[in-house]
Amino acid sequence: MNITEFKIIKNDNMARTGYLRLKHGIVQTPIFMPVGTYASVKSILPYELKNIGAQIILSNTFHLWLRPGIDIINIHDGLHNFMQWDKPILTDSGGFQVFSLSKNRKITESGVSFSSPINGEKLFLTPEKSVQIQYCLQSDISMVFDECTPYKIGERVISKKETLDSMLLSARWAERSSIEFKNQENQNMLFGIVQGGMHEDLRQESIDRLSQIGFHGYAIGGLSVGEPKDDMKRILEHTAIKLPIKTPKYLMGVGTPEDIVHGVANGIDMFDCVMPTRNARNGWLFTRYGDIKIRNSKYKKDSSPLDESCQCYTCQNFSRSYLHHLQLTKEINGARLNTIHNLYFYLKMMQEIREEINNGTFDKWRINFINNRLSKLL
Amino acid sequence: MNITEFKIIKNDNMARTGYLRLKHGIVQTPIFMPVGTYASVKSILPYELKNIGAQIILSNTFHLWLRPGIDIINIHDGLHNFMQWDKPILTDSGGFQVFSLSKNRKITESGVSFSSPINGEKLFLTPEKSVQIQYCLQSDISMVFDECTPYKIGERVISKKETLDSMLLSARWAERSSIEFKNQENQNMLFGIVQGGMHEDLRQESIDRLSQIGFHGYAIGGLSVGEPKDDMKRILEHTAIKLPIKTPKYLMGVGTPEDIVHGVANGIDMFDCVMPTRNARNGWLFTRYGDIKIRNSKYKKDSSPLDESCQCYTCQNFSRSYLHHLQLTKEINGARLNTIHNLYFYLKMMQEIREEINNGTFDKWRINFINNRLSKLL
Repeated sequence: MNITEFKIIKNDNMARTGYLRLKHGIVQTPIFMPVGTYASVKSILPYELKNIGAQIILSNTFHLWLRPGIDIINIHDGLHNFMQWDKPILTDSGGFQVFSLSKNRKITESGVSFSSPINGEKLFLTPEKSVQIQYCLQSDISMVFDECTPYKIGERVISKKETLDSMLLSARWAERSSIEFKNQENQNMLFGIVQGGMHEDLRQESIDRLSQIGFHGYAIGGLSVGEPKDDMKRILEHTAIKLPIKTPKYLMGVGTPEDIVHGVANGIDMFDCVMPTRNARNGWLFTRYGDIKIRNSKYKKDSSPLDESCQCYTCQNFSRSYLHHLQLTKEINGARLNTIHNLYFYLKMMQEIREEINNGTFDKWRINFINNRLSKLL
Repeated sequence: MNITEFKIIKNDNMARTGYLRLKHGIVQTPIFMPVGTYASVKSILPYELKNIGAQIILSNTFHLWLRPGIDIINIHDGLHNFMQWDKPILTDSGGFQVFSLSKNRKITESGVSFSSPINGEKLFLTPEKSVQIQYCLQSDISMVFDECTPYKIGERVISKKETLDSMLLSARWAERSSIEFKNQENQNMLFGIVQGGMHEDLRQESIDRLSQIGFHGYAIGGLSVGEPKDDMKRILEHTAIKLPIKTPKYLMGVGTPEDIVHGVANGIDMFDCVMPTRNARNGWLFTRYGDIKIRNSKYKKDSSPLDESCQCYTCQNFSRSYLHHLQLTKEINGARLNTIHNLYFYLKMMQEIREEINNGTFDKWRINFINNRLSKLL
């Protein structure tokens, strides 16, 4: 018997709630996954992540392969033990990172050769290798190794022919990823990744090819890669609805609170993004009334909490003035308190989204949420 | 009735236990005070400090005066509320920092004029001003404004005459600090600071002058300022025993675990130092079996805890290998976990010291502790 499953609980127009049963626990969807690139969600420890309601995190195969290396992960019997996070982990395939090394990498049918940015070592990553690494990491959800089709090369928007070739390569690699995954003793999940750039027909062809292989879930890749916002919206709306309906839909690397709400409205179940954690460290804080740049001098003497309605540890204990001071003095505790708040904001937003969908009131909530965030510039 | 007091509980040779009753709580001595320069003990939050047994912290008047400024502290009704630490706080006087600005400062009988290193603003700090600022901070223990006599100016060891003049200036400023303190509605404590450089007779004269003024406690200043270790030892041993016996004895800015144990053996009751927190961020970790530089490649594959006998959160949950990885990837969580361990080590050491003194077994413990730390290089 396979221990994993995905069940849909409630539909509200195209939005939906459900749950993922994974080896390390249940994940309620729609869900946001905090990013822990190097086996560490920056500035926040596992017990704190649990306290603010995190159910699953994302970690990066490429980074972990280079540092600490898979031998170290094996010594600890997997990534969960290494970092002491006992809930589910999704790992990306390393494809996105390896293609970001625009210099010093060479793509062939077999895989990608490149030099390690850490120590210059010659490395070769293939679909098989990526899936093997993710097996060692003991990821609850592995991703296929694909080529993340760029929007531009230098200043040139890439052609449809290039996008097609890239998508077809990704499809062949997806099949090799799937074969490797099935060869493993594995009761986890493998997700396919839809490519096809800004072209509806190529997106459809990608979906068809992936569905034929068969995956536990399907992700939309190749968005938020520098394209105009309208193109992103068009392709998201086109693609999300065409994905297989009974498996999880995952929008990779997205995004702002507004992007996520829009994704949910189009049926997306899973999201990840560095935005809440990275912005926190830069003093950019999210609230339901708009965003706060805490460095702004108008917060210097502001003894009120970031958001009076927020129940997070930061808002319950500290003033805007104190957070402003910690940001200016570059105190680590500033990064910590900001990270707690931003991740709490994202995770609370997802919880509200699930409740509203279950109540059949998501659309009303969504309009109100978007208006509230726009109505005041803090 | 004055709510503050200092009581000695037990003497064991020159070492002693006792307690300080302060406005924000009881402090058991001998005690180590973690340093929270900018109203934040770097990388560790107030509730975590309590969890590892911190009873009092030190904060820096000079830094807080410049940032966030006393107006901001006043808005929050004191430093405790601003940083959400409800146990006692000792503040230094700013003297040490202002003299460290070797350029752009001018000393007169009245005080020190200097340019703010933050924004260049012309500032003037006097004994009266320093004590007023510490009053606004609502410090449980304020320190007199003094000149920390340097050991060298440039490459030249300063003369006895210069040391005498400096000590006499500090004594006059101590009296002005005391007068200002008594003018305030204040139920807190003010400590004097003994100067006199490396000269026993000048140290004695400083003690005599300060005792005549009368303080709630006496600190030894002007040590750990670049002098040879033997000079520090000689002056500490000479000075500590000469301090008034019924008031707390505080050795400022010291030091290594060995320095602290040596200080306790000479009757010192209070210590502060940035070493456990700063070294933590640099990957230097203290254990009872010797120190660990966690960046060392021999810890890369070491899945054992930092110190198996340590009960801190870090040692109970994470491997040396994981801490090594966090250090190499410059993760904030590495600074956090290292800080928890180092401060726990210092505070646990102080707790053991108090227990051993109460049992009359401190000297035996001390020899064993020093030998254990030297016997193994980790």
